[in-house]
Amino acid sequence: MPAVRGFFPPRTATGRSSPVPAPPWYYSGDLLTVEYRTGPARVAELLPAPLELAAEDPGAVALIWADWQSCGASKEELLDPVRSQYKECFAVVRCSYRGNTYSRCVYIWVDKDFALARGNHQGYPKKLGSIQLTRPHPYGPAPRIEAGAVFGATLAAADRRLAQAVVTLREPSDSNGFVNGHPMAHHRSLPSIEPGKGLALDELIASGAESFEGGQPWSADAELELFEAPTEELAALRVEEPIGAYYRQVGVCWNGGTLLESGTSGAGC
Amino acid sequence: MPAVRGFFPPRTATGRSSPVPAPPWYYSGDLLTVEYRTGPARVAELLPAPLELAAEDPGAVALIWADWQSCGASKEELLDPVRSQYKECFAVVRCSYRGNTYSRCVYIWVDKDFALARGNHQGYPKKLGSIQLTRPHPYGPAPRIEAGAVFGATLAAADRRLAQAVVTLREPSDSNGFVNGHPMAHHRSLPSIEPGKGLALDELIASGAESFEGGQPWSADAELELFEAPTEELAALRVEEPIGAYYRQVGVCWNGGTLLESGTSGAGC
Amino acid sequence: MPAVRGFFPPRTATGRSSPVPAPPWYYSGDLLTVEYRTGPARVAELLPAPLELAAEDPGAVALIWADWQSCGASKEELLDPVRSQYKECFAVVRCSYRGNTYSRCVYIWVDKDFALARGNHQGYPKKLGSIQLTRPHPYGPAPRIEAGAVFGATLAAADRRLAQAVVTLREPSDSNGFVNGHPMAHHRSLPSIEPGKGLALDELIASGAESFEGGQPWSADAELELFEAPTEELAALRVEEPIGAYYRQVGVCWNGGTLLESGTSGAGC
Amino acid sequence: MPAVRGFFPPRTATGRSSPVPAPPWYYSGDLLTVEYRTGPARVAELLPAPLELAAEDPGAVALIWADWQSCGASKEELLDPVRSQYKECFAVVRCSYRGNTYSRCVYIWVDKDFALARGNHQGYPKKLGSIQLTRPHPYGPAPRIEAGAVFGATLAAADRRLAQAVVTLREPSDSNGFVNGHPMAHHRSLPSIEPGKGLALDELIASGAESFEGGQPWSADAELELFEAPTEELAALRVEEPIGAYYRQVGVCWNGGTLLESGTSGAGC
Repeated sequence: MPAVRGFFPPRTATGRSSPVPAPPWYYSGDLLTVEYRTGPARVAELLPAPLELAAEDPGAVALIWADWQSCGASKEELLDPVRSQYKECFAVVRCSYRGNTYSRCVYIWVDKDFALARGNHQGYPKKLGSIQLTRPHPYGPAPRIEAGAVFGATLAAADRRLAQAVVTLREPSDSNGFVNGHPMAHHRSLPSIEPGKGLALDELIASGAESFEGGQPWSADAELELFEAPTEELAALRVEEPIGAYYRQVGVCWNGGTLLESGTSGAGC
Repeated sequence: MPAVRGFFPPRTATGRSSPVPAPPWYYSGDLLTVEYRTGPARVAELLPAPLELAAEDPGAVALIWADWQSCGASKEELLDPVRSQYKECFAVVRCSYRGNTYSRCVYIWVDKDFALARGNHQGYPKKLGSIQLTRPHPYGPAPRIEAGAVFGATLAAADRRLAQAVVTLREPSDSNGFVNGHPMAHHRSLPSIEPGKGLALDELIASGAESFEGGQPWSADAELELFEAPTEELAALRVEEPIGAYYRQVGVCWNGGTLLESGTSGAGC
Repeated sequence: MPAVRGFFPPRTATGRSSPVPAPPWYYSGDLLTVEYRTGPARVAELLPAPLELAAEDPGAVALIWADWQSCGASKEELLDPVRSQYKECFAVVRCSYRGNTYSRCVYIWVDKDFALARGNHQGYPKKLGSIQLTRPHPYGPAPRIEAGAVFGATLAAADRRLAQAVVTLREPSDSNGFVNGHPMAHHRSLPSIEPGKGLALDELIASGAESFEGGQPWSADAELELFEAPTEELAALRVEEPIGAYYRQVGVCWNGGTLLESGTSGAGC
Repeated sequence: MPAVRGFFPPRTATGRSSPVPAPPWYYSGDLLTVEYRTGPARVAELLPAPLELAAEDPGAVALIWADWQSCGASKEELLDPVRSQYKECFAVVRCSYRGNTYSRCVYIWVDKDFALARGNHQGYPKKLGSIQLTRPHPYGPAPRIEAGAVFGATLAAADRRLAQAVVTLREPSDSNGFVNGHPMAHHRSLPSIEPGKGLALDELIASGAESFEGGQPWSADAELELFEAPTEELAALRVEEPIGAYYRQVGVCWNGGTLLESGTSGAGC
């Protein structure tokens, strides 16, 4: 009996039809982060048990735009850039699990299917969107990475604009923000194929970068707007108070995580 | 503790961020089907145990283009068509499981994220692609549904054309083809978040339409070309012998399926 | 000296690189029309001399969604549908020129480059957009063309929604609306390559369908919303009073027009 | 009578609906250039009278991928990046006009409508395409700009791949290539709206950068493949002999050009 191979379906005799290879996955990218406080109740309602609000600054949110090039161990995707380049925008909150603080992505939009597939594995609740982000450049009108440089960032999905930010770099910073700085606590799930039987997969997992390198973070001032849409709830994370904004170029390797527990989310689907 | 709701992530207090609502799901669409024989070994290598080649005509393949409008029970997606319209192209083979014959989708490309999400649930191995299909129209140069009408259909992914067909309607037919006519036997799976630990979800499920209505099927003559691509293996299902081609307009309701068995695919990921 | 050929650039020895062939151009499509009155001053400010407001009902506007399949005389584009299918949304007003009433498209968005190229020739001021329109279908949840059928239609550009409508068919109608019912009076122009020298091409032309066939028009009730955007002014054509709405399937042939006058628009660019 | 304003249609009372403002236009971008020789007859057949083959190296071609951010004098587009970022791939040859050597773009694909509009003004024969280009990055798997760095570049249009290149940086270079180094000699044209009456606009114009800044060019080794397509003729510029390849980051200002002559192209449309 021939085995089928491949990290994700479609699985074949060769495995090369998989949307992405098995981890490790490598990333080069630019991160634009806007942190602010929303009402803690808006965060709490996105945390299924046994996750709880973080003890400190429970209403903190990071909305992050990222402009990525990614690949597997062979790096071959970099030479066919339609398979490596993508952009994403995601909202991160913090939560507490068994006394430890975790970061948790509650909304995320990407613009390629291979990024969607990885999200299924990593527990990022990805949808497709249109994500735009000014890129630094050494010549011409685009900004250098320097004090006073201005970056724009926008997010749209289903033909509606959901968020936009204008971010002005201020000075080099010790930090690139704190909301997305913990290991991620994510759920991975799939409803049973049989109606009314709940979830066939229901896992709480933790993961984070296996290795990381990054340039000088910059602190920044941000103007952020969130917009209502019938099928999105990002705007419910209303900006009550700005915290800060950051810009940083990074390199990341991701290589799996740890199962925390299973079958306990109680998600009603 | 507030529960989170929604059929798929992102799950929220309201559930309205889910890419799609819970089934039943409803579809209106046009199906253009091209059936042919490939080498049975090419089919067998796509069938993980315990699936086996169908006893009769084991090399039969259907390549199907579909132009859909879909929605949940509220039908609200139809009024915001960016959320309801999508196109897909998929390759179907048949297989045998415990003495019964099933259809099985081995490759499929769609052009919307809500269709990708449904594929995760239904076990369709979906990727994004660009799917194009001539539509019948009562006026002007586009074809009517009548003898001699000619339809074009194309498929591309990652900026490469993967398939194209020209299909000429011949006459009303009793059948819309036989390869996609059985319940679907699909795998649903997700690798463990912990490297080297195999699959966290590994199900063989069966499903089919809960209800179906359709117009007059037409038989047709088809010219079909498949093209090689580095990350796709559709062309490995080489056309050895044409069987037939069909055109039909249909309405479908899908509402879940049945778990056949779990943990047995032996997929090496 | 070898001549270069082709209706539009790039012109080559064969002519086959042209985005479209020379007219005649053929179209099959569905038209969803919403007519309403805006302030006549909003129409007047879009009419360069010598065009004037129409004498009767000068504030009438038609916002039209169209779902097209188009081709040249060979019809070959229909068999490679990425080259024939496109959607558009356009705003039409009426105007008076030398005592005759013309229709005039003041804004239009399309989703393919071949449609943009034709717009340069025909004087339609086309931009790219995302245009969505419910399609009628004989089976499943999509609407039939019948009393009570509901269609949605949306327009977005640059990741912002610009317009949306929900249209409910009422009854068969004698008319498909009146605002888009006259020959079109359009400007064709290109600024001089030399800064400050005005327009190198500045034509007022008239054109209309060379031939036309169409199905039964339906009258309808419409809810229309227009949205502000920094680079768009469709919303300035504010809905002051609804007139009516219509649905019709049509076939059209377009084959050129007539030069009315040249060098007189006084457009300040 | 209110004037209408705007550099391109749609022209309005405010001018802000124009797809782009009047020049000057500013650009920041990365250029990947592959130069090679094709048969001079393939170049000659793309040069309408009075243009002639360049005296020296008449079969030289540059195929250039560019990853741009662009804006007008206000720079506002940079803060809404969907309006400033675009990519293009274009083929350049050289020609002789009245004893002087010019560069001339014979094919070009871009991925935004504002870039198409500028092409109409500048005489670039633009179509829409999907253009992909590895970007340098200081961290992670993407290449630095250094010896041995490898970049991929691809071009597709109408769901078919047209070109792909893999380019390996070798060493700093005095040159960024020579084929695209002259002022551009381009035609600007529009057929008469009246069938059979030839061109209503038929200009030969010259233009080039008003100002330019750039980083260190790098020479490189390139593997280039061109693919046939029914509506494209790039592959007719067959690679007979490689010349060289280059990588450079640049800043450019474009601000108009000069009319060379009018009404002489003899283009048969």
